[in-house]
Amino acid sequence: MRRKSFEDIECGIAQALERIGDPWTLLIVREVLLGTSTFEELRDHLGIARNTLAARLRSLTAAGILERHEHLRDGRRTRYRPTESGRELLLVLATLQQWGNKWAYGDRGAPTTMVERRSQKPIAPIELRNQNGRRLRLRDVTLRPGPAASPALLRRFELSREQGSDAP
Amino acid sequence: MRRKSFEDIECGIAQALERIGDPWTLLIVREVLLGTSTFEELRDHLGIARNTLAARLRSLTAAGILERHEHLRDGRRTRYRPTESGRELLLVLATLQQWGNKWAYGDRGAPTTMVERRSQKPIAPIELRNQNGRRLRLRDVTLRPGPAASPALLRRFELSREQGSDAP
Repeated sequence: MRRKSFEDIECGIAQALERIGDPWTLLIVREVLLGTSTFEELRDHLGIARNTLAARLRSLTAAGILERHEHLRDGRRTRYRPTESGRELLLVLATLQQWGNKWAYGDRGAPTTMVERRSQKPIAPIELRNQNGRRLRLRDVTLRPGPAASPALLRRFELSREQGSDAP
Repeated sequence: MRRKSFEDIECGIAQALERIGDPWTLLIVREVLLGTSTFEELRDHLGIARNTLAARLRSLTAAGILERHEHLRDGRRTRYRPTESGRELLLVLATLQQWGNKWAYGDRGAPTTMVERRSQKPIAPIELRNQNGRRLRLRDVTLRPGPAASPALLRRFELSREQGSDAP
């Protein structure tokens, strides 16, 4: 079945997933953020099929997450580098790693860990906080209409509040 | 083409994506974390096909992210609730929203925003920090073998260091 496009869903999560929801996509971003830059290296490191990798690199470039750089001195080899929006996916990858290391590997321990380069110490646990620094849990947060909510979305917020739910 | 399983990739990111990499899956988790709990409500809110929703709910339950609760008084209606690991996906969703609101909606402004329930103020920006609280950017972090890295993974770390890359 063809996947429905998420473009119509007014939600930053849906828009992020529309661009990077595919599992291979985020693993390719992880590789590029770590410094892997050519098609062949990406293929070798990930064990991904050529056509799958080519399609994902096209999507990532079209979405402005990666940029193609042609290196003339380097036998015209194309290298992929992250844009600013690509570099900011580091935070998404770090929270995914934190969750996966805890819930997939648990007490057996994690195979890889993200560290500060200089100190070689693990990064601090990533947490949700309010603007005064207080730690927030699920029950402490909710969604509200943002500055650009459409009338239809505002109506859904209204309706769900009447039904006692937080989901617009 | 059938997707390769990520079970063999020694990486918390890959393991997280193996469980929740599908775009619908994370939007279902978002709905359940916001309090939507029945099949029909999930279908209505997301505009998702019945068979797709049923398949994703089975995967999420099998992965221990959601739990089924049968409510006898409620016409035997099944409700889905998040487990502890499901609740901890809030952080992944929050970083996805932060990225999507910035890079998909940009200056036009976001349709929804995550707020602290009590103060109704937006949550603090989520950032990567070291253990002393210093903000970390991409160039400041790298991956290292974790406590349970296999000999094969250790060799890959060794090789990539020789090649001047951070990617194992």
